[in-house]
Amino acid sequence: MASTDLHNSVAASDRGAAAGGLIAEVLEGRRKSIARMMSLAESTGEAGREALAQIHRHTGRAHIIGLTGVPGSGKSTMVRALAQKFRTSGRKVGIVAVDPSSPFTGGAILGDRIRMTELSGDPGVFIRSMGTRGALGGLAHSTLDVADVLDAAGYELVLIETVGVGQDEVDIVQAAHTVVVVSAPGLGDEIQAIKAGVLEIADIHVVSKCDRPDATQTVANLRGMLALGAAAMGERSTWMVPVLRSSAQNREGIDALISTIDAHRAHLDDSGEIENRRREIVEMRILKAAEDIVRDRLLGHGRNELDQVLRRAMSRDIDPYAAAKILLGTSTDQDGL
Amino acid sequence: MASTDLHNSVAASDRGAAAGGLIAEVLEGRRKSIARMMSLAESTGEAGREALAQIHRHTGRAHIIGLTGVPGSGKSTMVRALAQKFRTSGRKVGIVAVDPSSPFTGGAILGDRIRMTELSGDPGVFIRSMGTRGALGGLAHSTLDVADVLDAAGYELVLIETVGVGQDEVDIVQAAHTVVVVSAPGLGDEIQAIKAGVLEIADIHVVSKCDRPDATQTVANLRGMLALGAAAMGERSTWMVPVLRSSAQNREGIDALISTIDAHRAHLDDSGEIENRRREIVEMRILKAAEDIVRDRLLGHGRNELDQVLRRAMSRDIDPYAAAKILLGTSTDQDGL
Repeated sequence: MASTDLHNSVAASDRGAAAGGLIAEVLEGRRKSIARMMSLAESTGEAGREALAQIHRHTGRAHIIGLTGVPGSGKSTMVRALAQKFRTSGRKVGIVAVDPSSPFTGGAILGDRIRMTELSGDPGVFIRSMGTRGALGGLAHSTLDVADVLDAAGYELVLIETVGVGQDEVDIVQAAHTVVVVSAPGLGDEIQAIKAGVLEIADIHVVSKCDRPDATQTVANLRGMLALGAAAMGERSTWMVPVLRSSAQNREGIDALISTIDAHRAHLDDSGEIENRRREIVEMRILKAAEDIVRDRLLGHGRNELDQVLRRAMSRDIDPYAAAKILLGTSTDQDGL
Repeated sequence: MASTDLHNSVAASDRGAAAGGLIAEVLEGRRKSIARMMSLAESTGEAGREALAQIHRHTGRAHIIGLTGVPGSGKSTMVRALAQKFRTSGRKVGIVAVDPSSPFTGGAILGDRIRMTELSGDPGVFIRSMGTRGALGGLAHSTLDVADVLDAAGYELVLIETVGVGQDEVDIVQAAHTVVVVSAPGLGDEIQAIKAGVLEIADIHVVSKCDRPDATQTVANLRGMLALGAAAMGERSTWMVPVLRSSAQNREGIDALISTIDAHRAHLDDSGEIENRRREIVEMRILKAAEDIVRDRLLGHGRNELDQVLRRAMSRDIDPYAAAKILLGTSTDQDGL
């Protein structure tokens, strides 16, 4: 769609015209406009929704790679190395890094992002850091909107990086075409347990810091879990999940990771599995959006209905489930047993 | 409500009569019936909802204590010690432990629960372990239903224990009257960062393993963060969040923790803050229930409407947000920009 069409279709108001111009600039790949559109995605107001719906129409070209691993797994270093390697083949790379935020300062706790700056001079790389703080409840939703912006702006590879804890983060990573889970040797059962939920969604496992002697054990453990998992869950795909070794510090294993990512992408296309995955991603995104809409609706202030239902629930006249049904309009007042 | 009333009101079907009997038995505190009612809460089917709505009417007497901390923080040991101490004053104690599950075996990864068995011979203690696995998407909802069952069955103190990662787990802990956050010395910034989201919701901080020399630094760090937080966020309560020291291994600090929990409860009552907290808890529970209802509705199979909307979203005719609005009935087909 040419920028003039966009201008015509949204020219009814000044804000509409501005959004139309902004959309056109994003599609042209202008960095400032990309950043502004991302801020719209993060603000989650109705104002930005119209523009993001337009942006979404222009997505679908990028290969989305979800990369997850607990802090300390070397995942951020790996993302940086991956981006640099992808750049040597001329491909444009977008990075969305989801950061745990400090509850007190609002800023990112981990310093990893700062080291990304060595990439930020490259016009073929766009890096966006998302705080988990600003988007409480809507994190998945806005992260994927931000990835959409990069896709529409012509970034051929979009790397989404998360620390891989919590359902929201698992959902974000699952919205990728290729999911890479990074484990580190010696992090201990305690931390590995935290990320248990993400182990099974990996298309590719990478064990980082393979210069360490205990890395062999971690590789063996993952292979054992995969064998167990395949037996327990049956085969859902003909893709054999590989366990790669890397040492991102000295750039080892990055070539193998890139060719495995490319092989996985080819596998999705050749087997037709890409259609299933696309369907799952859309389902998940619709679900996340629905949750946000419901949250906004329920928490909207000045709502007599909410107050009334809240009072009934607080007096135990109805239970929270019945209250939710009333507010969602799937139950009448009489229903609440 | 007497058990005969319950029988009359639900006697229309055999299942109803059975549920009525079950409810009466739960209110009498029969262990087998409590366990069966909890299984209903975990199965999240419509069948159990009616019974749980009845159970909910009989709640409101228990003091709910949320206890969170990453694995390795000594939180499970502390829960055990707390329960034992509470028992010496004759109070009945319910424990709901939310466990990260192994994605492959379906079982709990952490062995901590096994050590709970020393409590399980005591008829004044009821322990329920919830796997995060079985309740994907509905974890908060079913955990709080299980806590309701304990409340209705006459357990005066209900301890809810989580590993404190992810929005769902933060929500669970926030549904408590008193929130205890356990930190351990030496776990490192990396793990502390993971649980950043829960630090600010603490009513009471406890630093465990205070026999270790580096515990003093952890206490100082928490106090520093609290001072920063108070300045940044303003005072929302007249309760001064204390940082306690404990060594659960040798039962140190448990008396102080119990008297601080009791003091917090008295503060909530005396200041009237308990009403605000109750309102927040009900709001959160309604929200969680609404999310579950929406998730069930959207993921329900054999739905032509969902398939149609999915197809439109997959072809990028509409974006996921517009699709969600259509499915929620808050938008017409024409709306999708």
